[in-house]
This record gives sequence, structure tokens and C-alpha cells, in this order.
Amino acid sequence: MFFPMGIPAQASEAKSADINATIGQLTDGHGRAMPLPAISDHLTGISLEETTLYTPQGGNKALRAAWKNRLQNVGDCQMSDPFCTVGLTHGLSLLAELFVDEDTDVLLPDPGWGNYDHIFSTKMNARVHKYPVFENGRFAQDAIKTVLGQVQRKGVLVLNFPGNPTGYTPTPDELEPWLKAIHDTEKPIVVICDDAYAGFVYEQGLIPRSPFYELASAPTDRVLTVKVDGATKELCFFGGRVGFVTFGASGETADALDAKIKGMARANVSTAPAVSQALVLSALRNPNLQAQQAERLEESIARYARLKTALAKTTLPVVPFNSGFFALIRVEGDPEPLRQRLLRRGVGVVALPKYSSIRVAFSSTSLTDIDRLVDTIADEIGEGA
Amino acid sequence: MFFPMGIPAQASEAKSADINATIGQLTDGHGRAMPLPAISDHLTGISLEETTLYTPQGGNKALRAAWKNRLQNVGDCQMSDPFCTVGLTHGLSLLAELFVDEDTDVLLPDPGWGNYDHIFSTKMNARVHKYPVFENGRFAQDAIKTVLGQVQRKGVLVLNFPGNPTGYTPTPDELEPWLKAIHDTEKPIVVICDDAYAGFVYEQGLIPRSPFYELASAPTDRVLTVKVDGATKELCFFGGRVGFVTFGASGETADALDAKIKGMARANVSTAPAVSQALVLSALRNPNLQAQQAERLEESIARYARLKTALAKTTLPVVPFNSGFFALIRVEGDPEPLRQRLLRRGVGVVALPKYSSIRVAFSSTSLTDIDRLVDTIADEIGEGA
Repeated sequence: MFFPMGIPAQASEAKSADINATIGQLTDGHGRAMPLPAISDHLTGISLEETTLYTPQGGNKALRAAWKNRLQNVGDCQMSDPFCTVGLTHGLSLLAELFVDEDTDVLLPDPGWGNYDHIFSTKMNARVHKYPVFENGRFAQDAIKTVLGQVQRKGVLVLNFPGNPTGYTPTPDELEPWLKAIHDTEKPIVVICDDAYAGFVYEQGLIPRSPFYELASAPTDRVLTVKVDGATKELCFFGGRVGFVTFGASGETADALDAKIKGMARANVSTAPAVSQALVLSALRNPNLQAQQAERLEESIARYARLKTALAKTTLPVVPFNSGFFALIRVEGDPEPLRQRLLRRGVGVVALPKYSSIRVAFSSTSLTDIDRLVDTIADEIGEGA
Repeated sequence: MFFPMGIPAQASEAKSADINATIGQLTDGHGRAMPLPAISDHLTGISLEETTLYTPQGGNKALRAAWKNRLQNVGDCQMSDPFCTVGLTHGLSLLAELFVDEDTDVLLPDPGWGNYDHIFSTKMNARVHKYPVFENGRFAQDAIKTVLGQVQRKGVLVLNFPGNPTGYTPTPDELEPWLKAIHDTEKPIVVICDDAYAGFVYEQGLIPRSPFYELASAPTDRVLTVKVDGATKELCFFGGRVGFVTFGASGETADALDAKIKGMARANVSTAPAVSQALVLSALRNPNLQAQQAERLEESIARYARLKTALAKTTLPVVPFNSGFFALIRVEGDPEPLRQRLLRRGVGVVALPKYSSIRVAFSSTSLTDIDRLVDTIADEIGEGA
């Protein structure tokens, strides 16, 4: 896979020409957009060029720089320029296309997001192995060492903290053996840190940032670390579909990986949506952003605390959680009939039969509804206080 | 490929529950969005739920219905509900993943869009065959009959009117032998009508609509017709990345194809950007849309007419064009040095070495610059009046 030196490359060279007759988009001839008012009337205080014209392949350059700056404020390690994707799924999908074939062992968390299976197994036909996040109700500290032993030739390992559906983030001590196992891998592996829920952490003493930073700071020849994140959850812009892929690499390696993923994206979606990118860029430049994010975090913490309190009054078998958007409750046997019964009582949850669990998204439950949510579940399971 | 009965399906069932704790997005608990003002302050007169929360898999349902209505206003034939994609490239990419493997013959126009090669050849490894759009300076009426003879087991044929880079749309008489050849195909084929530039037609007597309508109205067992189009050019929303895939099928076939492409997209980008979809939906509902589009069309016609007049004063070897955004000028030998010389004189065009041509996007050239554009090219080629 390569990025073809076609029209986007030539258009980029002609950017400052008096007459730029390269790109097939309608402009006034001097780079200014000519959007239909039916669309642009809804956009205020933001450049119409940045929202309605094409962005460069790989994303709005100022946005990529701003996101990199954001990452570097969290920690210093080698990193490529974040590559803008259409949400986080797209980042995972492009990485799967770049690094996975039928002779790749893909190591996924269990419990883990169902779409991982869909991407890596259904679509890419990889050999998938699940590693446990918990063992006997505690963080499974030997899990990575064990599962790395399954890699035959080359592997892809997905880490996800805060986790979906677990809502769990480990402490530094808990994570240490995982980092060591990765560092000591015998086979070459790509480690994908899915940091979708970065920042939504509600307890003290947990790892303060993505494992990406530690892994990319201590590179070995056999490990490439990649960060997948985005504005979807971090900036509460779910419908925006702005994600990023950042490689723990620099120099020529970073350039080569950027060209590869750009080529892959060109054959897939071409550029990501400009309007979403422009909105995220504007938010990153907004001096009130931190305060606004803090408000949302406060609301999440309040819901989390209320849920913890309500659950503590029951004997429901809850999987440990301390972050993210979800809590997982174990169910005897198939959770699907329970989901149906709850639905008839006006309560929607997700049944995860693979994990004999239901997943509760407290992120989309109001504070005042949380007690009723827990009571209804406890009542249906027969585990009320 | 299939659409997994996972979280999106369960979330859809819980839509009207009192407490909907299914989806991992931050809401007020009653379906209302809680976006950051840093983002939502730029959006006016449009629902924050439709712009900042997730859309259903396959796209905003009202948008899909509105686009279908738009297509049905142009002609009546069997068609599925348009599937919303992240721009037209994404539609082509999903269709390639659904219908193309290494044992598929893909038949592409010559001249044609370079990204077709990238998608079908570089990424999918298909056997690509080019068919000529012109022969001896005229529309190549036997081209499709001839190229269909190359299909070994199954084929995918791409039609593109108005064409990129040709800017050409045939007359009904010119197209007739192509339609007949498709109808008479011996091997099963999928015909993809890339209608990116639909509506940008500047002369009388050309086909009044996409070949999709004629092909989908006269189905055979061996032909599946698919329409790829979108708001990118039609609504001048280049940065929006809203495209559609519509199958010339109905009933169970349409449902099966919808499930397949939905499954493919779930493993690729999940949902398309909500904000872009909401803006397009609002535009489609706007009573002034037609008048606004007519203004843009008028501007395009003026530039087209000026370009025709300017070219007629030269002896430049122009490939026939009558529609779309581009004109193609033949060049002796490699067009790249010519492109470089033009760039130094402040004129950006695209060099297409494969076609020994330069492509001129009059869509992004102002009316007042068109004479200078043509004069500079003619001067550099030595074909001035």
C-alpha cells in the first residue's frame, strides 16, 4: 500500500498558484468556498472553507498539530503526527488492514468491545485469542504474558483503558506486569492502545494516562505502539466521527507509516469530514474548553458515585469498575431474557451473552434515574437489598 | 459479512424506554445531547441531537428517506433505501469489499478517475481492464461490448457520467449500445454508476439522468446495478463527506444487500458523521434549495461557456466535454514538465501522464481568470491562436 502521487499531491503543490484549477470542487477561483446557504446558514463563527471544502489527505493540518500538542501535554515520548480518521472504529479498521492478515494472531481483551471481533475476525480473518482482564474478580496480571505465548509469527495486541464494556482502569502496580510482558515479547507485535474513554477516570491511584506513553518511551525492535483516540468521547462529539491514529515512532519510520495509512485511507474514505474536523479544531483552541470538559466529567463522576452507592445496597455481582461509561453486571446463564424483561419495564440495557453479563451505560442515564435503574435490575434478578 | 446483532441493534430496540442505558454516549438521560458549547456554539438552527449524537448504522433514517425521495423524483425504478457513506470514495470502497476479489474482472473507464485504480487494483488486487470512453475523438460505442468479453467469471463495471476527468456525458443514442451490451452480458456483473457530478450538465440532448434508472428498470438475472452518489458535488458540500449507495433492487434482495453493506461499514467506520448528515437533511428540506442549486449551476454554465469560447480561439487538442467540473487537454509526451512550467507561471492544473493530458478544473477557476488560464496553457504548448 502506498499513497498515489495523484491529484491530491498535485493540488497541494498548486495551493498558492494565482489560478488553481486542480481540484474538483466549486470555489470562487481564489480558494473561497461557495457553499449553498441551505447548508452554511447553520454554521456560525467558523470558516466556511474549513467546514465545506475538502481537507488535505490525513486531515486538517492545524487540527493534527493541535491534537499532537494535546497528546504531548500529557506526556513526552516519540510520536508521529496524529492521522485523522472517521471516528475510532476507522482507526482500528485501517490498522487492521495495515498489520493484520490470516497469519496474524490478534489478542483481544475479554470482556471486550464486540466490534473488535467484527473488525479483526469477521472482516480480516485473523486468528483471534482472548485474554482475560479479570481473574477471580481481580485484575489478571499474568494475562498478557500468557497470551503473548500464543503468537506464532506476529501479533497485534489491543489494550483498552478505561475499558468497554468493563469501565475498568488498572493501577500502575496492576499494569506493570503487562508492560513488562510486552517489552519482553519474543515475537514482533503491534500494540494498539484504544484510548476512546481517555480522561473519564473517577478514582484516585489509577494509571494517570494511556499505556501508550510508557510503551512508546521504551521502544524495542519488536514492539510498535499505536494510539487510537479521538473527539468522540473525549470532547463529547459522538456524531462528529473525529478520531486519530498516532504511532509511537518518529523520523523516517513515522513518515513511512503515515504514507501507508494515508494510502489505505485514500482507497477507503479519501478525506475525513471537514466540518467535524473544523469544529474539533475550534474547540481545541477555545480557552473555555477545559472548564467545559470539567463540567461533563463532574456530571459523570456524580452518576458513577450514585451508581456505586445504589449497587452497594444490593448483592448484584458487579465486575470491578472505576472509569469510563459502563458497568458490567454478571448474570446466571443467558442475559437476553433479562434484557427483554427489563425492556418491558422501561429499562434498556445491553445483553452480552458471551460474557454472561448485562452492560449498563450510566453515561446515558440521568442522575435521578440511577436508583430506579439499579432497583429494577436487582428486582428482576432477585438480588435486591 | 453480516451485521452483528450487537450493541447498535439492542440500542435501537431501547429507543423508547424510560431509562435507556444502552449506548456509550453522554446524554441527559432522556435522549438529549450534552455537547460542549465549544462545539455546539457553531451550530445554529439545527438539532443538537441530530448533529452531535450517533446516527443509526446506515445513516439518519429521515435523511435516507429524503435522498430516496430525491432519486424517485428523477425516475421510477426498483431501488433500496440509500445507504449513507462517508463520501463517494467510501461507497466505492464498500462495494469493492463486497463484490471484488482476486478472481473478479473490474472494468474501468479510460480516461477515468485515478482513485478507481487505487481502490480496485492496489487495494483489492482485482484484474483491472480499461475500456475507452473515446475512439478516434468520438464516444466509443463498442467499448462495453468488447470489454465485457474480458470477464472470466464475474465482473464489476464502473460507469461515470459526467465523467472525471473527461467532463463528458453521452447522448441517449451514444449510450444505447452500452446499455444493450450490459443487458446481454453472459457473465454476472455488478454495474456501479458513479454519479458524483449528477446535475452538472451544460448542453441539450444529453442523457437526462444516470444510466442507473434504465438499467435498474430492465433487470436481468445477471446484472445488479448500484448507484453511488452524494451531497459532495450535488450540494457543493465537499467537506461534508455524505455519500449514498443505492442498489437497483427491492424486497428481500435489497434487505440482504443492506445488511451486508451495513456489516461491512460497521467493521470500517461504524456510522457516518452525524453533523454532515444533519446539514444535508436540513438542506433537502429547505424550500430554497432548488433556487440555490440553480445559482451554482448557472455559475458553472458561465465558466463552461467561457472556457469553450476561449479554447475555440486556440488549436489546443481538447477532448470532447459538455458537463461536470473538468476539461482534458491532450499533450504530446509527458504532461508533467508542462504542469511544472504552468505552476511557475501561477497556473495550477493536474498532469495525467497515463492519458498524456492535463486536466483543467474550471469548477475552481473564476470566470475572469478563464481566458488567462487558456492563454497560458496555449502559450506553453505553442498552440495559441
